[in-house]
Amino acid sequence: MTLTGVPTGTEYVRRQNTGLVLRSLRSHGPATRTELARRTGLAKATVGTIVAELEAARAVTQDATVSSGRGRPGRPVTLTGESILGLGLEVNVDYVAAVALDLAGKVRVVETRPVATAGTPPSTAELISMATDIRTTLMREGHTVVGATVAVPGLVAHDNRTVSWAPNLGWDGRHLAEELEEAFGGGCPTTIDNDANCAALAEAAHGVTTDVSHSLYITGTIGIGAGIVQDGRLIRGGAGFAGEVGHMPIGNPKRVCGCGRKGCWEASVGLRAMLNAVDMEEENTPLQTATTVANRAARDAGMRDALAALGHDLGTGLATLAAVLDPAAIVLGGYFVPLGAYIVPAAGEVLAERLPSASIHLPQIRLSSLGIHAAALGAAEDALADVYAGTLAL
Amino acid sequence: MTLTGVPTGTEYVRRQNTGLVLRSLRSHGPATRTELARRTGLAKATVGTIVAELEAARAVTQDATVSSGRGRPGRPVTLTGESILGLGLEVNVDYVAAVALDLAGKVRVVETRPVATAGTPPSTAELISMATDIRTTLMREGHTVVGATVAVPGLVAHDNRTVSWAPNLGWDGRHLAEELEEAFGGGCPTTIDNDANCAALAEAAHGVTTDVSHSLYITGTIGIGAGIVQDGRLIRGGAGFAGEVGHMPIGNPKRVCGCGRKGCWEASVGLRAMLNAVDMEEENTPLQTATTVANRAARDAGMRDALAALGHDLGTGLATLAAVLDPAAIVLGGYFVPLGAYIVPAAGEVLAERLPSASIHLPQIRLSSLGIHAAALGAAEDALADVYAGTLAL
Repeated sequence: MTLTGVPTGTEYVRRQNTGLVLRSLRSHGPATRTELARRTGLAKATVGTIVAELEAARAVTQDATVSSGRGRPGRPVTLTGESILGLGLEVNVDYVAAVALDLAGKVRVVETRPVATAGTPPSTAELISMATDIRTTLMREGHTVVGATVAVPGLVAHDNRTVSWAPNLGWDGRHLAEELEEAFGGGCPTTIDNDANCAALAEAAHGVTTDVSHSLYITGTIGIGAGIVQDGRLIRGGAGFAGEVGHMPIGNPKRVCGCGRKGCWEASVGLRAMLNAVDMEEENTPLQTATTVANRAARDAGMRDALAALGHDLGTGLATLAAVLDPAAIVLGGYFVPLGAYIVPAAGEVLAERLPSASIHLPQIRLSSLGIHAAALGAAEDALADVYAGTLAL
Repeated sequence: MTLTGVPTGTEYVRRQNTGLVLRSLRSHGPATRTELARRTGLAKATVGTIVAELEAARAVTQDATVSSGRGRPGRPVTLTGESILGLGLEVNVDYVAAVALDLAGKVRVVETRPVATAGTPPSTAELISMATDIRTTLMREGHTVVGATVAVPGLVAHDNRTVSWAPNLGWDGRHLAEELEEAFGGGCPTTIDNDANCAALAEAAHGVTTDVSHSLYITGTIGIGAGIVQDGRLIRGGAGFAGEVGHMPIGNPKRVCGCGRKGCWEASVGLRAMLNAVDMEEENTPLQTATTVANRAARDAGMRDALAALGHDLGTGLATLAAVLDPAAIVLGGYFVPLGAYIVPAAGEVLAERLPSASIHLPQIRLSSLGIHAAALGAAEDALADVYAGTLAL
């Protein structure tokens, strides 16, 4: 399998048509070649060639001949793809994670490794070692890894290969895709994406927003980011920086943000703002920290009030985002999950109160269900997306 | 021509393929049927049938046979479509407007009629009379009006047929599409869309954002709305209410909005807020009002300061929207246009200052160039969109 930058002419059409057949099988189930030709409008000979290629790549199987009841019997083509995998990776301040997902949507590998940071910016050593280990094992088992996507907590350049700015990792202009591709030794095209985007994709495909086509995922760590899904697709913005909502100038105007300015939303609702509000210390991970806070809040009314006040500020931002994007559901991830009971009611009140009109649908606030692997799972979906779109040649 | 709700099976595929051929002709220019088959991946017989139908509908013409230099000579198929028109309409507080656009992108009719309101909510009489007049004339001249879209300053229900809430028109749950279709006497499927969405489409197709695929259009009247374009497509939200940015809770927290709450953005930057700031009265239209203000501001430093302060509040909202959506360009419409020189510099300063990171591209602020017909022109684009998408049968 190869990935080229700008496919053209016949080759481009062939890929598009391959994507058309794959999407038809995924969305509408198994079908004979005749049925696929009818569904897609492609010539039957074209469908035959595509199916033969997909079968050779073990993306589909053809069952025994069955009679369709009318006309000549056909052999139903079924999407299997258990040997075609996308590799999703996540690098964060204190861990790296991986998920391998097959073409039929099954998770085949899940792994997390802690990263010893001790105050220094993390290197890519742990990420590369985990990624190459997993790929080597998968290839030895006869699988094909069609590509990898890495979720990072920061801004990703428009080329989807470079981390422009990930302040919490101390990275600025890092050519992460290139580093990984070199480590893979070729054959595994790699892209980078923002972690909120990846988590939003994962929730939409496997989590709490599979039932809606318009959703918003809010990361809850030291920084606050958003992944925006509209009509089932990620909204990325003109330069790939959509969803940088932590720096919306809607927070307490006196609070100083990590970026040096005042009034950013994340300076009011990020992990450190929360810890200040309840006067507690940061632990190893945002989830651990928030779990400890939640346990204390259960028996401390003052702490519950402080969290409700934070929920109010959270709601102001959610109301702003809802007015712009009109999501059917808003998913809170990261540190918000263990604290849901204390912050969601207040946030929901502000959201309802600030809706532009009573005729606007009130977005539901939901808590992420995918835990620490959300971003890596979404990255794996992303790694397979090119196959479905027909831009990755099989 | 007919429009059906949920196309299925063979008919659906036929429409999709018709859309594919039309888009190929629009994007890549004239081509023989053989070339079209290669471009689209459709069987040559399928292309032949589609081209014959399009020719019968006068959407395309086939030129005289030319030799392609290799293989059998073919007759180039050219998109003409001068007789296939989309009708764009706009209804606003003090005027109704219409634009008829043909399939090849040429504007064929432009008309505006003032509406006498005298304090009463406008009826649909003027709109219907203008729309039926224009359609009758066009049909008499041998044109086919494939559909109409009406731009309204308010919330449009998800069915694209009902005005949910247009406070400035005094409409609440009005079945506008049905009213128009009845007036047309059938044969002209009609949809409703928000005016900011329509104006954003018009700027992207004919105005100041033809060069970018991610843009944001901000209406400037009593209310403030946004039309969001990402990857060349409108972002509509889960229930069709995306872009209701006037009620983002980011304005001066003491200012009361028309909606009854405090702190809405439009209570700080809408037309009436501007008039309060410069202590002047509203005239017939936002454009007239702003032109008078601009003339006074040219020789009044105090007024210029007041407008710069408003520009600052405008910039806060634009920075919020830029953090969420990362547009390449932001277009200011309505009353902002005549006042551009006094408000854009201050708005641009805040926008630059509040960018999440220096590695983020600074969106350009541009002034709308399409004047009063922007929304109707975009509505006409919308009315033709179903033909290009292949969901409207020719």
